[in-house]
Amino acid sequence: MDSKEISKTVIARLPRYYRYLGDLKDKGVERISSKELSLLMRVTASQIRQDLNNFGGFGQQGYGYNVDYLCEEIGKILGLNRTHNLIICGAGHLGAALAGNGSFAHRGFIIKGLFDVDEEKIGKSVHGINVYSMDAFDYFVGGHDIDIAVIAVPKEAAKELAERIVSSNIRAIWNFSNTELNVPDDVIVENVHLLDSLMRLSYDIDSYTGSKEPGENGEE
Amino acid sequence: MDSKEISKTVIARLPRYYRYLGDLKDKGVERISSKELSLLMRVTASQIRQDLNNFGGFGQQGYGYNVDYLCEEIGKILGLNRTHNLIICGAGHLGAALAGNGSFAHRGFIIKGLFDVDEEKIGKSVHGINVYSMDAFDYFVGGHDIDIAVIAVPKEAAKELAERIVSSNIRAIWNFSNTELNVPDDVIVENVHLLDSLMRLSYDIDSYTGSKEPGENGEE
Repeated sequence: MDSKEISKTVIARLPRYYRYLGDLKDKGVERISSKELSLLMRVTASQIRQDLNNFGGFGQQGYGYNVDYLCEEIGKILGLNRTHNLIICGAGHLGAALAGNGSFAHRGFIIKGLFDVDEEKIGKSVHGINVYSMDAFDYFVGGHDIDIAVIAVPKEAAKELAERIVSSNIRAIWNFSNTELNVPDDVIVENVHLLDSLMRLSYDIDSYTGSKEPGENGEE
Repeated sequence: MDSKEISKTVIARLPRYYRYLGDLKDKGVERISSKELSLLMRVTASQIRQDLNNFGGFGQQGYGYNVDYLCEEIGKILGLNRTHNLIICGAGHLGAALAGNGSFAHRGFIIKGLFDVDEEKIGKSVHGINVYSMDAFDYFVGGHDIDIAVIAVPKEAAKELAERIVSSNIRAIWNFSNTELNVPDDVIVENVHLLDSLMRLSYDIDSYTGSKEPGENGEE
């Protein structure tokens, strides 16, 4: 089946499968049934079977899933079989926190540089990653085959920065600025809206009854 | 309809509705049709009608939705009609970035304090919020009616910290440590897995064809 036909909601769940299967792999687990996986991930076994069937299943009846194989296949679907080069725009607390997140590099997301307009930050390094001036932006991007630009600047500066990123021919933006960007249709934007996550938590607090459904633990 | 019966996927979409409706409200828009809202949010009008019907609809046939009313009702469903007190555990770059996010307070999420074990940070303030020693944790929590504890510490320290939070009777955790926490069933955890978001972006890059579906812009 053409993976482009798969619904966004299924795709959105794949990284979570990948994370759990990666942990199992690290623990030396070779096979797991949809039932065992469902208990671990707190989703129904039927949803797991449905989701994975979108990709041909990978399961052998009665034998469960081959963890190593399934993890690798989902990794391929997610594009993790190649590395991606990132730059982080904004060397403030958020940019620095992202630059220090070792799990990104572990999955092939390589942070090539930080960019800022603050003379105090330019020329220094954060977690071993150099901070460059925005003046060097186009030159740097041109020379480093950058796949993804991270927007870690205040809302007010985000729209102008997005235009700069688009004009430099980067085609994917990871946006932390909590504002919707107007970019051409051939530019992909993944927004991280932390406030949305906080509102979901607020909902769970107020609607909490003591009887929790599988998957209701905010792990989606 | 009892909102507790509503599926997690619908609930997960409510903050996004709230965000867009809030922007419309700020722009002075009084009414909007599901069609107009669908163009704006890049989801189908039928999904919007389905989602909002879970809460009784709020729409008047032919007149569209009353933005102000709908925004307020969704806010109530999300528990935003009351304030929530937060503490942030970990005054590193991530904790500081969260402490500096003004949009949280704007929605009634009040950050009461930061906590750290680093003597260098304790006693200082970040964006006007004091950094306290973990030694003062239980005393502070007891005196400030804390609803939510934010875990912004490295993976290695997260599990022990979670136990400390639970024993202090805080019943909601916003977890940035990228590790699954084992907490009692009456403690709510909302995990922020940034790597999952990055993997979705990676998928979109590799599966990108140039023809984008509504809602395929990673804004879920």
